[in-house]
Amino acid sequence: MLYKDVIKGNIRAVAKLIRKVDDRDGDFLEELKAIYPHTGKAFLIGITGNPGAGKSTLVNNLIKKFREQDKRVGVIAIDPTSPFSGGAILGDRIRMQKFFTDDKVFIRSVATRGTLGGLSRSTYDIIKVMDAMGNDVVIIETVGVGQDEIEISKLADVSVVVVVPGLGDHIQAIKAGILEIADLFVVNKADLDGVERTVMDLQYMLSMDPRQESDKPEIIQTIAEKGVGIEEFISKLYELKEKLKSSKYMENLGRERHKLELFSILDSLIEDKLDALLTDTRVKEEVEMLQNRKKDPYSLAESLLNEVFK
Amino acid sequence: MLYKDVIKGNIRAVAKLIRKVDDRDGDFLEELKAIYPHTGKAFLIGITGNPGAGKSTLVNNLIKKFREQDKRVGVIAIDPTSPFSGGAILGDRIRMQKFFTDDKVFIRSVATRGTLGGLSRSTYDIIKVMDAMGNDVVIIETVGVGQDEIEISKLADVSVVVVVPGLGDHIQAIKAGILEIADLFVVNKADLDGVERTVMDLQYMLSMDPRQESDKPEIIQTIAEKGVGIEEFISKLYELKEKLKSSKYMENLGRERHKLELFSILDSLIEDKLDALLTDTRVKEEVEMLQNRKKDPYSLAESLLNEVFK
Repeated sequence: MLYKDVIKGNIRAVAKLIRKVDDRDGDFLEELKAIYPHTGKAFLIGITGNPGAGKSTLVNNLIKKFREQDKRVGVIAIDPTSPFSGGAILGDRIRMQKFFTDDKVFIRSVATRGTLGGLSRSTYDIIKVMDAMGNDVVIIETVGVGQDEIEISKLADVSVVVVVPGLGDHIQAIKAGILEIADLFVVNKADLDGVERTVMDLQYMLSMDPRQESDKPEIIQTIAEKGVGIEEFISKLYELKEKLKSSKYMENLGRERHKLELFSILDSLIEDKLDALLTDTRVKEEVEMLQNRKKDPYSLAESLLNEVFK
Repeated sequence: MLYKDVIKGNIRAVAKLIRKVDDRDGDFLEELKAIYPHTGKAFLIGITGNPGAGKSTLVNNLIKKFREQDKRVGVIAIDPTSPFSGGAILGDRIRMQKFFTDDKVFIRSVATRGTLGGLSRSTYDIIKVMDAMGNDVVIIETVGVGQDEIEISKLADVSVVVVVPGLGDHIQAIKAGILEIADLFVVNKADLDGVERTVMDLQYMLSMDPRQESDKPEIIQTIAEKGVGIEEFISKLYELKEKLKSSKYMENLGRERHKLELFSILDSLIEDKLDALLTDTRVKEEVEMLQNRKKDPYSLAESLLNEVFK
């Protein structure tokens, strides 16, 4: 078992456990049970935004500042990775090199590769490992606004949405859902043309938000490439953390988060069981029956479930 | 049962069945089994792209042209809907009004609202209903490139990725995954500055694609607002359909699609069972145990599964 060394913050043990959890290998579930009481200490920051918003540069700047404050930092980059190549995106490899010699910075890319869609079944577990290993801060970075981001925003203590000026259709670019997941808006690349317009659009959108003024997300500006605005960004993050901790809203959020976690674990366990049943040969046979319309997929699914949970 | 009228293309029966499927109501599963032999006839077109790419306008133009050819058209707009409001986005309502009087156009918005993340559990089923009701074409529209889009691209006969000029970081904007899901790239808003650059970036990306030249996606340009390029778009779609049908690749795709469908149905059935077990009161109680750390979520998930499938 690795959990004892993981809790002590041993990097090699952490890397091994993450691999074990990702592979659903051996007694990984017992490991997760053992680290659970040591979780709940890290400050979980969710950062999302469209491709091209400069999230990676922004996160690099955050890491640097957190390190100057001697904080231990974990980063989980969630990739809508190609289903074919399965590899991590280039940017993350470059980033990992940058902090390669710093053993207080731990970065992992996680592919969204759940068989049944949605977040990879190990994403939640890896957040737990990053938390239990003693990170002060865990940054969870996602791309775009979709189901994944909505889930992450529920798991994170503070959710940041990064936007950039000049995305064309202003209203469309700020899609349904983005308002509710944001605790803070960061307008990055604030030296580009159209920044005032982007801020105005966000303000307009927020003016229609029914929450009271003090509960609405603030808007800050950064130029991550030049390190501009990063200190304000960090102090806003801590401000929000304190504010949310003291609010009633937080209690509901906590409940929601536990519920989501539970469902995610249920999903994982079921997938594990199905994986064991549905060998490649079996899948091939069954799918042939479907292709020849000798079976319908609904009846097949019913009989498979009866089989796996008999 | 509604399936007999659905197969005949009765709009009211279709709307009722979609509601029934969405609500997982009564004998919805028997209805789906009954319509299954009548599916597989519609031309399934997946269209994805970032918010602001002009997908809605493009789809409106497609509908118009298909109607001129007297084709029956179904549209499924998949929304990363706000988890709080649950409503369809404004654009879709406006769109639905436009074709309100045409009974050969059937448009539905589907929220991505799966409890366990990913596509809503009824999305696949609604595609089947749209197929079985006798549509010649079913357009499935999604936002952004993530897990949802990858799934849809496997379900669709032809997958289109819509991009627009001037998205800032050119390389970043074209994220991992987008290459593999595209059968065709549409550069929309081709009257904007930077269109040549966008086309060049796509060409550069495709030059690194290991597939042989004839298998790589083509790039076309449209100005959907002005109806420019739509005829070429449609003829490319049919060209691709024929090309893919006659290729070996299609056989693999068919297998992959059936597999994905099967897993999606398995997932839905499990969610239904869990829903029945996990009443609001029960969830509240269990979550309280988690919050007080009286239980860990892994052990809880194990015991719930034993209970539901005993």
